[in-house]
Amino acid sequence: MEPKVTYSDLVIIGAGPAGLMAAAWASRMGLDARTLDDKLDRVQTGRADGLHVRTLEILDSFGMANAINEKAYQLREICSWNPDPEDDSKIQRTERVRVKEEELGRFCQLGIHQGFIEQNFIDFLQREGRLSVERNTKTKSLQLEEALMTDHTAYPICLRIERNNITTNGATADQGCKKIPNTKMRSPQEEIIKARYLVGADGGHSWTRDQIGLRLEGGKTKVHFGVVDIVPITDFPDIRVSCSIHSTKAGSTMTFPREDRLVRFYVQLAETGSEGDDLDTSKVTPEMITEKASTILSPYKLSYEHCDWWSIYTVGQQCAPSFSKGNRVFLVGDAVHTHSPTMGAGMNVSMQDSYNLVWKLGQVIKGIAKPDILDTYNAERQSVAQTLIKMDRDMCDFYEKGAGSDAHNYDEFYERFRTFLSGVGVEYGPNSLVVTAREDDGSRDSQSGTDLDGSSQTRRPSTRSLASKIPLGQRLPSFLVLNHAEANIVHVHSMLPADGRWRLLVLAGDISQVAQMARLRTLCARMDAPSSFLRTYTPDGDKVDSVIEVLTIHAASRRKVEVFSLPELLRPFDSKLGYDYWKCYANNYEGEEGDFDDAYAEWGVDKDEGCLVVLRPDQHVSLVCGLQDVEEVEQFFSTILVPHKRRKAVAVGCGK
Amino acid sequence: MEPKVTYSDLVIIGAGPAGLMAAAWASRMGLDARTLDDKLDRVQTGRADGLHVRTLEILDSFGMANAINEKAYQLREICSWNPDPEDDSKIQRTERVRVKEEELGRFCQLGIHQGFIEQNFIDFLQREGRLSVERNTKTKSLQLEEALMTDHTAYPICLRIERNNITTNGATADQGCKKIPNTKMRSPQEEIIKARYLVGADGGHSWTRDQIGLRLEGGKTKVHFGVVDIVPITDFPDIRVSCSIHSTKAGSTMTFPREDRLVRFYVQLAETGSEGDDLDTSKVTPEMITEKASTILSPYKLSYEHCDWWSIYTVGQQCAPSFSKGNRVFLVGDAVHTHSPTMGAGMNVSMQDSYNLVWKLGQVIKGIAKPDILDTYNAERQSVAQTLIKMDRDMCDFYEKGAGSDAHNYDEFYERFRTFLSGVGVEYGPNSLVVTAREDDGSRDSQSGTDLDGSSQTRRPSTRSLASKIPLGQRLPSFLVLNHAEANIVHVHSMLPADGRWRLLVLAGDISQVAQMARLRTLCARMDAPSSFLRTYTPDGDKVDSVIEVLTIHAASRRKVEVFSLPELLRPFDSKLGYDYWKCYANNYEGEEGDFDDAYAEWGVDKDEGCLVVLRPDQHVSLVCGLQDVEEVEQFFSTILVPHKRRKAVAVGCGK
Repeated sequence: MEPKVTYSDLVIIGAGPAGLMAAAWASRMGLDARTLDDKLDRVQTGRADGLHVRTLEILDSFGMANAINEKAYQLREICSWNPDPEDDSKIQRTERVRVKEEELGRFCQLGIHQGFIEQNFIDFLQREGRLSVERNTKTKSLQLEEALMTDHTAYPICLRIERNNITTNGATADQGCKKIPNTKMRSPQEEIIKARYLVGADGGHSWTRDQIGLRLEGGKTKVHFGVVDIVPITDFPDIRVSCSIHSTKAGSTMTFPREDRLVRFYVQLAETGSEGDDLDTSKVTPEMITEKASTILSPYKLSYEHCDWWSIYTVGQQCAPSFSKGNRVFLVGDAVHTHSPTMGAGMNVSMQDSYNLVWKLGQVIKGIAKPDILDTYNAERQSVAQTLIKMDRDMCDFYEKGAGSDAHNYDEFYERFRTFLSGVGVEYGPNSLVVTAREDDGSRDSQSGTDLDGSSQTRRPSTRSLASKIPLGQRLPSFLVLNHAEANIVHVHSMLPADGRWRLLVLAGDISQVAQMARLRTLCARMDAPSSFLRTYTPDGDKVDSVIEVLTIHAASRRKVEVFSLPELLRPFDSKLGYDYWKCYANNYEGEEGDFDDAYAEWGVDKDEGCLVVLRPDQHVSLVCGLQDVEEVEQFFSTILVPHKRRKAVAVGCGK
Repeated sequence: MEPKVTYSDLVIIGAGPAGLMAAAWASRMGLDARTLDDKLDRVQTGRADGLHVRTLEILDSFGMANAINEKAYQLREICSWNPDPEDDSKIQRTERVRVKEEELGRFCQLGIHQGFIEQNFIDFLQREGRLSVERNTKTKSLQLEEALMTDHTAYPICLRIERNNITTNGATADQGCKKIPNTKMRSPQEEIIKARYLVGADGGHSWTRDQIGLRLEGGKTKVHFGVVDIVPITDFPDIRVSCSIHSTKAGSTMTFPREDRLVRFYVQLAETGSEGDDLDTSKVTPEMITEKASTILSPYKLSYEHCDWWSIYTVGQQCAPSFSKGNRVFLVGDAVHTHSPTMGAGMNVSMQDSYNLVWKLGQVIKGIAKPDILDTYNAERQSVAQTLIKMDRDMCDFYEKGAGSDAHNYDEFYERFRTFLSGVGVEYGPNSLVVTAREDDGSRDSQSGTDLDGSSQTRRPSTRSLASKIPLGQRLPSFLVLNHAEANIVHVHSMLPADGRWRLLVLAGDISQVAQMARLRTLCARMDAPSSFLRTYTPDGDKVDSVIEVLTIHAASRRKVEVFSLPELLRPFDSKLGYDYWKCYANNYEGEEGDFDDAYAEWGVDKDEGCLVVLRPDQHVSLVCGLQDVEEVEQFFSTILVPHKRRKAVAVGCGK
C-alpha cells in the first residue's frame, strides 16, 4: 500500500527545547505545522539545566516564565575556591561574586532540569490546543525538489516518516505512554509529508543535517568531564551557590545547584589534551565521578544517597558552515553548534535559534513578509554561535588552567561575558530587519515637511540622540510603566507577547504640552491615511493591529491627559468590546505614581522630543526615528513586507 | 436497605470559597476529611469578585497567588465623581486616589470572578491528590449526640447525606460533568457519616446553621442594588479604575473593573429606607440596570453587547450570635455574616474564617493541640464580622448620602478602613493563642538565669521594644531577606507555607559578634535539651520540625558567618538529604547584597539584641520575647499543646 501523502507548511523534527520553541511559535502564529519526535516521551532527568535572563524573557513572552521561576533554583552568587597557599592539599574560598544578571533584566539565572522546561512547553501547546508533539515517529528520507526551491508558495520538501505502533494523538499525546486497553499492536505506518519549510531540531547527531549534506566543523578534544546530579551530603559551605573549584593535585570541578536539593557537579576526568592520556569512558560510574569531586573538595566531605542523573562528555567546539539550505530547510540548536556545558548556554542558545527563526517563517508562510528575510536567520544566529564557541574555548582554558594563570580572577573573567551570556547583549544586524543607526547629521534638513511643529523642521536628531540607550538590533530593555486607563504598573515586555506581530512603539513624549500633542496627532493622522503602512500591509477587514500593533508610551502626567484625548488610532474601537485600553501607557511622571522606573530616562529618550521605535516580533529593535519620520517607517516596512493586495494564495498540492 | 455508615474526622458542607479554603487546609494537614456540595459544578460567572491583600497572602501560602495575580485586574486607583456645581445634570471627577494597599503587603487588591478562585482551589486539591469535592450531594439530617460532645476523640456528629445519580469520584470529581458511557442512572444513594467535627460553609441560607438552631441577627433594609458584569462600550474616561459616582437626580453607582475587559456596576435601584418605596425586583433586567447607570454617568454614554452576569441584592447587615456549637460544629462565611458587597470584602472574610479555623481543627484532630483552642475561633472571627458590619453600615451611608454630606471625601473615608479591609490590620487576642504584650518593666529581673551574656541578665526589654513594629495578634509583616546558603532573596512569608506547623522565628541579631553568637548557641542548647518544647510536643521518630519549625533570620553579614557555624539545630541533618539549608536566613546587612528591604528595621528589631517570635500556623504572631526567654516559649506551648506522650489514640467507631 502506498503511504498517504499530506501537506504541511512547516515540519519541525525534534521535540527538545529548540524544537518545542519552534512549535510554540507555530502554535501562537496559527501555522499549519507538525512536530515529530522519534522518542516515546520527553527527557525525564538531567541534560541541560541552565536558563539565562533573555531565555526567561522569551519564555515569558509565551506566558511560561512564572511557573519555571517558581520551581527553579535562582543563581545569586558564584564562588571560586583554590588551593590554600599554606597547605595545598586543602582548598579555600578565594572569591565571592554576587551575580548581577538581574541588573540586565527582570529575571535571574536559573537552574532547572531540561525535562521541566519541555513539560512547560508541552503544557503550553496543550492549553493553546493547536499543535501537539507526534512521538515515536521516525524520519526515513528527505528529498528536496530543486526546481521548486525558489517558489515560496510551493512544497519542495518531501519527507517520508514512519509512525510506530504505540501512537499518541491529540491532547493526550504528551501525557506519557499509558497502554490503551484493547488497542492492538499495529505495524508501523508510513506517511509522506510534502512541506514548504523544515526545521531540523534533532540535536548533535542531527539526521536532518546529514540529509542536507552539512557537516559540523571543528573537532573534539581529549578532555573528558563527568557530570552527576546528586543530592549532596556534605559540609562544604558553598554547596548551594555555583562554584568553580581548583585543587592542586586532583583537578577541577564546577558546581551548579538546582531544584529539589539537587546539585550538579562537572568533574574533569582526564588530563588536558595529551594524546596518550585517553580515558575508557565506558568504565566510569557516578560513584567514581563523585569520589573524584570529593577529593577535589578536600578537606570537605562529599557523598550522596540519591543520584538523579549522570553522564560523561568530551569537550569539543563545533559549528556548521551554514544553518540553512536554500531558505527551505533550517537547522537549530545542537544540530549546528556544540560546545562545552560549562557556561550553561546550550539550551538557551538553542531555544533562541528557534525564537529568531520561526516568526520569520510564520510571516513568510502567511505571505506577510518577503522570503528574503529568511536570509537573516543564518546571518544572525551563526554569528552568535561563533561568538559562543570562541567564548567557550576561553572558558575551558580558564577552567583547565585554574589557579595557575592570569585567568584566576573569576569576577573579571565573568564580567567580560555576562552580557552576552545572559542573552541580553545579543545584537543583530545591520541587515534588512535592523536599520543602521543614522549618524548625527544636524545639518541635514528634515525629509518630512508635514510636521505641524515648525521648530522641529530644522532639527533632526540622530538615532542615537533620540534614544541613546536603546541599542539597535538588541532586544528592547524592559522597564515598568503605567497603563494609562488602569494606572496599573506593568513591564513593557508584557505588552510584547510572542504572537508574530510587529510593533511600532510611539514614545510620544510629554503630550500635556500642546505642541507635543499636536505632533502626536499629526503622526496618527498620517498613520491613519489610506496609503499608510498600517493600511498597506493589513488586509481589509482585519483588525488594524493584526500585522503591526501601535503601542504608545507617553511621558505626560496621567493626571493631566485624559485617555480619550489620545487619538483613537492609539486605542482602537471595537463594536462589541468598546475601546482598547491596553495600548496606551504613561511613563512614571516625576515619580508621582510610586517608587518605580523612569523608562524614558532608562532608554535615554528626551521627554520633550519622543521617538518611534519599530520592534520585531522577537522584541529586537529594528529602527529608531523621530515622531515625524513616518517615511522612514514606511521605507523600512516596504523593504520587508508584502502589500496585502499583492499577496499570493498558496495552493495546497502545487508541489506535486 | 440501611444506608452505609462511614467515619470521618471532618466534614465540610459547601464548596464555595470558604468551604474550599477549609478543604485546602484539610488537604495540606492530611486530615481524614470530606467536602460535600449539593451543586453540580463550581460557580461559572459573577458573584463575589474582590480579593484583598491578606487574602492573596493566604492564597500564596497554598501556592495559589501567582496564577490568580496573572489573570486578575489589579486595582491601583479609585476615583470619585460628583455633580458638576455649574450644571448638576452632569458629573465631574472630584477626586483621584492612588490605592496604597501595596504598602501593606506585596500584593495589591484584585478583581476576578469567584469561579476562577474556586477553580484554583479545585486545581490545588487535584494537584495535592488527597481530597476532592463530592458534588451533587445533599445533606438530609444532622444529629448531635450530646453525651459525646466533650470527648474530642469521639464522633458525636451524625450526618445523613444523599448522593445523586451523576456522581463524581476521585481526581475527576471537579472536571465537570461529562457523561460516562454505559453508566446507568442510579437511584440516589444515602450514607450516614459519623464525624468528629463539622464545618458549615453553606452560604447565606445555611442549612447547617438551621440544624444547630442559630439565626442571623439584624435585618434587611429596603435598599436594592442591581449588579451587572458587562463589557462596557463607553466614553467615560475612568471606566478602567474603580469609581464611586453620585448624580443629583439619578442616584449613585459604583464600578469595579475586572479581568477580560469586564466591569462590574453596582447601581442603586430604589430610594433609601422609606417603606412605601418597595421595588418589584422580579421585573428588573440587566438592560434596566445599565440604563440607570448610563443616566447616572451623563454626559458620558454607556451600553454593552456582552453581559456576563447580573443580579439584584437588598442591603442588609446580619450576624449570627455564635459561630459554633459546642466546639464541634462551626459556621464560616455567609452562613454567619452578611453585608453589602460595596467593600468587596465578603469572599475575603469568608475565606479568612476558614483559614482561622481549620488549622486549629487539624491540630486538635491530630491530638497535637488541646480542644480548648477551638474557643478562639468564635472569639477571633465574630469580632472581625462585627467590625466589618459596622464599617459596612458607614459605607452604605456614605454611598447613599454621596455628594451631600461630610462623607464626600472618599480618600479620607477610605483611609479610615483600608488597613482593616486589606485584612492585614486584623488583630486577634489576647487569648490562649496570642500572649498579651509585656509592659515595659526594666526594673524586673530576668527570669532566665542561664544566659551566657551577663549583660543581658539585668535588662529585660518589653515585648514592644524588642520588636516595636511586629504587632501581637496580627499577621507577621513580610519583607525580603536572604537565604544564607543560597544568597537568594526571598519573602519571609515564603518560609511560612500553610502546612499546619507552628514556627519559632529566631531573630538572632548580629551573630558575627561573639557575644551574640554565644547567646544563640545557648538558646539552641536549651531548645535541644530532652525536656525542651521541641522534644515535648514532637513524637519520637518524627522530624524535629514536624510540630514546631525553627527558622532563623540573623542580622550579620552573610560574608562574615559560614552556614556551618550556625548551630545544627537550625539546619537539621537528614541522612538521605544532607543538611536543610532552607531554615537559615540573613537580613540584608547594610544593603551589601542589593537594593531591597532591611527587615530588622521594618520590624523594629534591634540588631544587637534580636528576639524570638512565635508564629501560629496562620502566620499570626502569638508571642514576642527575648532570645533568652525560652521559659516564656515553653509556658506558651504548655497551655495549648499536648505532650506527645499524653496524646490519646482516636478509636474509629467509638461514637457508635
